[in-house]
Amino acid sequence: MSKGRVCLDTSTILKWLVLEGYTVVCFLANCGQEEDWAAVEKKALALGAERMVIEDLQREFVEELVFRAIQCNAIYEDRYLLGTSLARPVIARAQVRVAQQYNCEYLSHGCTGKGVRFELAFKACNPSMKVIAPWRLPEFIQKFQGRADLLKFAAENNIPVSSTPKAPWSMDDNLVHCSYEAGVLEDPDHTPPKELWTRTVDPTDAPDKPYNFTIHFDKGIPVKVVTPDGEATDSVELFKLLNKIGHDHGVGRVDIVENRFIGLKSRGCYDTPGLTIARLAHLDLEGLVMDSKVRRLRDQFVTVEWSHCLYNGMYFSPEREFLENSIIFSQRNVTGQVRMSVYKGAAYVLGRSSDASNLYSQEDASMDSLDTFSPMDTTGFIAIQAIRLEKYGLQKIKDGEPLSK
Amino acid sequence: MSKGRVCLDTSTILKWLVLEGYTVVCFLANCGQEEDWAAVEKKALALGAERMVIEDLQREFVEELVFRAIQCNAIYEDRYLLGTSLARPVIARAQVRVAQQYNCEYLSHGCTGKGVRFELAFKACNPSMKVIAPWRLPEFIQKFQGRADLLKFAAENNIPVSSTPKAPWSMDDNLVHCSYEAGVLEDPDHTPPKELWTRTVDPTDAPDKPYNFTIHFDKGIPVKVVTPDGEATDSVELFKLLNKIGHDHGVGRVDIVENRFIGLKSRGCYDTPGLTIARLAHLDLEGLVMDSKVRRLRDQFVTVEWSHCLYNGMYFSPEREFLENSIIFSQRNVTGQVRMSVYKGAAYVLGRSSDASNLYSQEDASMDSLDTFSPMDTTGFIAIQAIRLEKYGLQKIKDGEPLSK
Amino acid sequence: MSKGRVCLDTSTILKWLVLEGYTVVCFLANCGQEEDWAAVEKKALALGAERMVIEDLQREFVEELVFRAIQCNAIYEDRYLLGTSLARPVIARAQVRVAQQYNCEYLSHGCTGKGVRFELAFKACNPSMKVIAPWRLPEFIQKFQGRADLLKFAAENNIPVSSTPKAPWSMDDNLVHCSYEAGVLEDPDHTPPKELWTRTVDPTDAPDKPYNFTIHFDKGIPVKVVTPDGEATDSVELFKLLNKIGHDHGVGRVDIVENRFIGLKSRGCYDTPGLTIARLAHLDLEGLVMDSKVRRLRDQFVTVEWSHCLYNGMYFSPEREFLENSIIFSQRNVTGQVRMSVYKGAAYVLGRSSDASNLYSQEDASMDSLDTFSPMDTTGFIAIQAIRLEKYGLQKIKDGEPLSK
Amino acid sequence: MSKGRVCLDTSTILKWLVLEGYTVVCFLANCGQEEDWAAVEKKALALGAERMVIEDLQREFVEELVFRAIQCNAIYEDRYLLGTSLARPVIARAQVRVAQQYNCEYLSHGCTGKGVRFELAFKACNPSMKVIAPWRLPEFIQKFQGRADLLKFAAENNIPVSSTPKAPWSMDDNLVHCSYEAGVLEDPDHTPPKELWTRTVDPTDAPDKPYNFTIHFDKGIPVKVVTPDGEATDSVELFKLLNKIGHDHGVGRVDIVENRFIGLKSRGCYDTPGLTIARLAHLDLEGLVMDSKVRRLRDQFVTVEWSHCLYNGMYFSPEREFLENSIIFSQRNVTGQVRMSVYKGAAYVLGRSSDASNLYSQEDASMDSLDTFSPMDTTGFIAIQAIRLEKYGLQKIKDGEPLSK
Repeated sequence: MSKGRVCLDTSTILKWLVLEGYTVVCFLANCGQEEDWAAVEKKALALGAERMVIEDLQREFVEELVFRAIQCNAIYEDRYLLGTSLARPVIARAQVRVAQQYNCEYLSHGCTGKGVRFELAFKACNPSMKVIAPWRLPEFIQKFQGRADLLKFAAENNIPVSSTPKAPWSMDDNLVHCSYEAGVLEDPDHTPPKELWTRTVDPTDAPDKPYNFTIHFDKGIPVKVVTPDGEATDSVELFKLLNKIGHDHGVGRVDIVENRFIGLKSRGCYDTPGLTIARLAHLDLEGLVMDSKVRRLRDQFVTVEWSHCLYNGMYFSPEREFLENSIIFSQRNVTGQVRMSVYKGAAYVLGRSSDASNLYSQEDASMDSLDTFSPMDTTGFIAIQAIRLEKYGLQKIKDGEPLSK
Repeated sequence: MSKGRVCLDTSTILKWLVLEGYTVVCFLANCGQEEDWAAVEKKALALGAERMVIEDLQREFVEELVFRAIQCNAIYEDRYLLGTSLARPVIARAQVRVAQQYNCEYLSHGCTGKGVRFELAFKACNPSMKVIAPWRLPEFIQKFQGRADLLKFAAENNIPVSSTPKAPWSMDDNLVHCSYEAGVLEDPDHTPPKELWTRTVDPTDAPDKPYNFTIHFDKGIPVKVVTPDGEATDSVELFKLLNKIGHDHGVGRVDIVENRFIGLKSRGCYDTPGLTIARLAHLDLEGLVMDSKVRRLRDQFVTVEWSHCLYNGMYFSPEREFLENSIIFSQRNVTGQVRMSVYKGAAYVLGRSSDASNLYSQEDASMDSLDTFSPMDTTGFIAIQAIRLEKYGLQKIKDGEPLSK
Repeated sequence: MSKGRVCLDTSTILKWLVLEGYTVVCFLANCGQEEDWAAVEKKALALGAERMVIEDLQREFVEELVFRAIQCNAIYEDRYLLGTSLARPVIARAQVRVAQQYNCEYLSHGCTGKGVRFELAFKACNPSMKVIAPWRLPEFIQKFQGRADLLKFAAENNIPVSSTPKAPWSMDDNLVHCSYEAGVLEDPDHTPPKELWTRTVDPTDAPDKPYNFTIHFDKGIPVKVVTPDGEATDSVELFKLLNKIGHDHGVGRVDIVENRFIGLKSRGCYDTPGLTIARLAHLDLEGLVMDSKVRRLRDQFVTVEWSHCLYNGMYFSPEREFLENSIIFSQRNVTGQVRMSVYKGAAYVLGRSSDASNLYSQEDASMDSLDTFSPMDTTGFIAIQAIRLEKYGLQKIKDGEPLSK
Repeated sequence: MSKGRVCLDTSTILKWLVLEGYTVVCFLANCGQEEDWAAVEKKALALGAERMVIEDLQREFVEELVFRAIQCNAIYEDRYLLGTSLARPVIARAQVRVAQQYNCEYLSHGCTGKGVRFELAFKACNPSMKVIAPWRLPEFIQKFQGRADLLKFAAENNIPVSSTPKAPWSMDDNLVHCSYEAGVLEDPDHTPPKELWTRTVDPTDAPDKPYNFTIHFDKGIPVKVVTPDGEATDSVELFKLLNKIGHDHGVGRVDIVENRFIGLKSRGCYDTPGLTIARLAHLDLEGLVMDSKVRRLRDQFVTVEWSHCLYNGMYFSPEREFLENSIIFSQRNVTGQVRMSVYKGAAYVLGRSSDASNLYSQEDASMDSLDTFSPMDTTGFIAIQAIRLEKYGLQKIKDGEPLSK
């Protein structure tokens, strides 16, 4: 008699749940990672899963999450492009859908110790469904105190151990990036070895010639990539093409110590080829077409806050919805094309153009002709701006700390 | 009989002022730009200057402005490292000092049409000194309506024309960067030609091997750079060493359309080798040693606002002083070293370490041992964080828009 | 032969423009101020205006501007409810409409010295129409150097002087408030005399009993006011009813020194009866129905920025449009009613309720029953939140500055 | 044999701890609340406490917390002056000191279900001391499931029940305010009865004449209060005098629904007489003496963030220390006096003056004389500000949505 039906992201805890008496529906999201799908299914069924459900989420991942990140130039702590954080909501939502479809009463995941992003998404997407997080159950932790216990359990239950013992770090792979952390990387002064990176060639091994291409945007969303070797317009294909360009030329490696939601610092390495390129191009186009004040408000408030929402697992939240409404509104004129180049680890902008906006004017920009205002206007502008500064300078003199010391 | 004594940054308007009847003290700041100092002095005196004063401001430029920019990771519109903006306050303040020293009644500058940053600084540093801005005087503009008028005036007055006719753009050079704008660059889709860049070699011409070195920081300020070819600890020498590294490996080129203070967009190209490297290293060290909430407050408010202050010529202002007090306070623990590498246009972090902070702990970071809190604590953390999200999810269901659509 | 047709807000400069040779279309906006409309028209025509156009803008003023201010709890520098700033865009836009309708080539206004808000709105609403601002024309200022010159000019040209000589300050009146500034108020320590205030009775003269009423909101907009003496649902009528309640009970007086856009400080007194009440009620309802994080983002970014936009005359701007999109989105659930009371100068909330939101739950709020989470969850929440704080405490001990000093 | 020594804030759980086998040192902070100190001590010893320690914390409460709140105009969600939040850090720190002094191994508190602020402070102040929170222990909660269980336990153990059964809400009292919540107040539409308020007379019962007085500030801190009935300069005395003024005239009542840290909404009523008055006066003085840009940065970032820190129990945190450094810096010129009046529930500013700042100038403020800049300068200022707006207006015309619709 089953204790109930659980929807589980495939992992080593499947067998444990089966042994505990649960009926398990395994779920695996295809977010573009490398995977032998047939083998995964075969293994899950062999270990006792009632069913294995694999869903291709690449399109919703790219269109709902990745493109939104591009539209707001999302970044966490100036460096991290949120590759893992962007995938979590899509996966969690799909898992809830599958759980509902197959009448599961429980959701479960194999994240060790944390899984904050998954569970926050579960609770928002279906507040009435219960969560089993074995790695936070005292009885489970008691049983599996280290890797040795896990290997023992695997051996006893004929569970093939998939993680090859060679990689002394953990990895998480999806269409956007691969992340590397833990193991030898826990020493923040340990340089990642050359063989760590999987999504980018080493810059020293990249081609000796720059590679040029063009990205077209419509309302802040990439809609076409044109290269000397062909073009792409479909969202997923286009993003994969950017990934390939970035991969081949070693673009998008980041190695940081970041601040986790729970208050700890953690070292992470990420290679994020396509999104690195797309973000740079988008940022550049906004320079040409976005009003300066709107940009400043968007940068300081929306971009920062949206990025933190995502990082902290707060995608399914009122504040993310609120921010996203602003993002989309801000992009109405972000239409145009950016000519790019990649070369041995770096991406460059070669030029940009747009028909959608009147904000940049070659005539205004010229020093030799100023039609919209006269140089004399600047005199007045300066005089007014200086009112406060003169008072400040006089106060400083009075205080015995003249600014022209 | 002189109309009065003017302190002027050396420029083509010297002769005009002399002809107008002013006594002119020429001032030239050495902020690290390339210049034939003796020739400048000779020319100024030949054109009728009463005196030529050249001041080496490199140290105050680096220590008061550039290091502050590094401490707060200053950046404007995500791309521009403020090379010109950082030099302006130092130059303007020195010019006011010189004007005071030589009993000038006027300050003047040769900036065409704008000069906002200079004048705002003049007015704060000495509110009682008057400013002559010829390029905003109707009578001057009337006389000099285009480059042809200028060349004619130069020829008539035996003024050697220094700008070689070959560079179809204008440049501004200092220890931090060289900027390129106007001319052919006014077309934002016109790729800067290879020969434009003066402070960095072309990445394709850079050495074929990465070059590794280490930057040491004390309270957020770079205090030592160690390379295979020697080290530097003096502020100016150290910064020049970073410039050389960046130059040789083609690091720090940026090409953008930016939003000027006065509301116009403008295309600018900048090569900023040393500051690009120093900023990246500093940012990285902060990941290791700075508290996450302090960092977020500093990033969102202080960095953004300080960068805007500088860009808008508001260095000598109450708000800059207010922000700078926060910057310095935030850097008390930003002490440690960052190992870096440069290769063909890009800079990379290889590792970082610090004895000054307890915030990163290899033990905490490890997934296998969590001493400061238990996995069960995370359960409670998630439950509390989810309170709002569950209500949101329920409301969405009630509204007929379930999140697990 | 006319120099051209000017659309002018009615003022003493009408005659001057006529004498200068312009054809003048006078425009007067009815934004709810006290005015003898027939007398104004008669006077304008007598002074030589080609035509007098009076437009009732009360509805667009209330619905487009005032209600938006209520929706975001707009306030400037913690005190000023922006009564003047809210009216300016409505007036300026209507004046441009009238100017276009009657084929005027110029817009003019009688604001002394400033008029920044009007002109910024003119330039946005019709960039091709020219502006005549006599108070900033050297020839005009030369002629009218003080009040005496104005009176003399009035006498010479048979201009009836409308401002009674008794009020030693200037006033600006509309449906939202009356402002008082200049004259004796320029001494910031001079208490406004009792007779200054025109829109509120003195609190000491207000009724001796509290007066209770209810305001209903729909999506953040007041849609019904119910009082013991009747109710109102029409936007303008409803706002006038709130004004009457506030007036009778002395609610909404503010006396401040504020920071003007141009960098000067200025002392202003304002009585703003209805908006003070409506803002308090709206703020209170948001406490009940708005998500905490959305509120915080709205408060810190949208409210502050929108209020500054309005104050600085930037209503017709990309950033205001961007912010307003956020305001409206944030108000989707701000539906409910607030029971209020006014008494001798102050307004109080008596209670609030809403069917639109599930965020407040009497069960959750109770200390005796907690269903959505357990007290044990709080333990985990605290433990996780404390991770950073413990490190901080330990660092302080190490630094010799223990927090439990 | 004792299980160990516990330092407990006095409460009904004392007996339970004793019965559980702990040695208990009782601690009671005097933060200005009403209390029969001798009776509390007698009761604690009678119930088995080893010792009763009472500490007068009023001075550090006022000088370290309350004055800091005044300096930054602290407020939470536009309404709540943080009366409870301000006291918590002072109490928690003193309890840790006492625990250290008497060699306790545990800290305990009697907060039901929550106590987040206390525990976060405990953990920062002494990370190595353990916390016993009975109301979050399953065994304790099991035993005391409702008020009836508590009363039964009290009866069985001869614990005199102090809370009179008449007040159907809970209260928390200190020098700053009294808070009222829970019970009948859980219905947010239930108006607090007249007898609820303990720190202010009902406005309808307040004197029929306004009462005038003056508050002097030095660097943002109140240093003297002068009234017709005497003056005070000592920090605690001065604050008590403000409390008395506010009390007698019914100033400082607030009734709100607020957002708690843990994500729930909660209804609270607060009467905060002295702080309400002091905050208004301080805010007003800043209008006169603080630079506008510094004020805006302080308002938008420092005030909001400091208030949230305090509300969320994050006083002992790196970010609070960081923010406080800014607060103090911002107050260097906030020196002067504010003349105030109170009358039947409301406080008013009558005037303000300062010798410390040159920012307000009666001459500048006058419309008739403008020395620092000319009206013509405003023309230039407007022209430059309008550059963006004109482009916006033109774009709107092009888009078929002219602004002058």
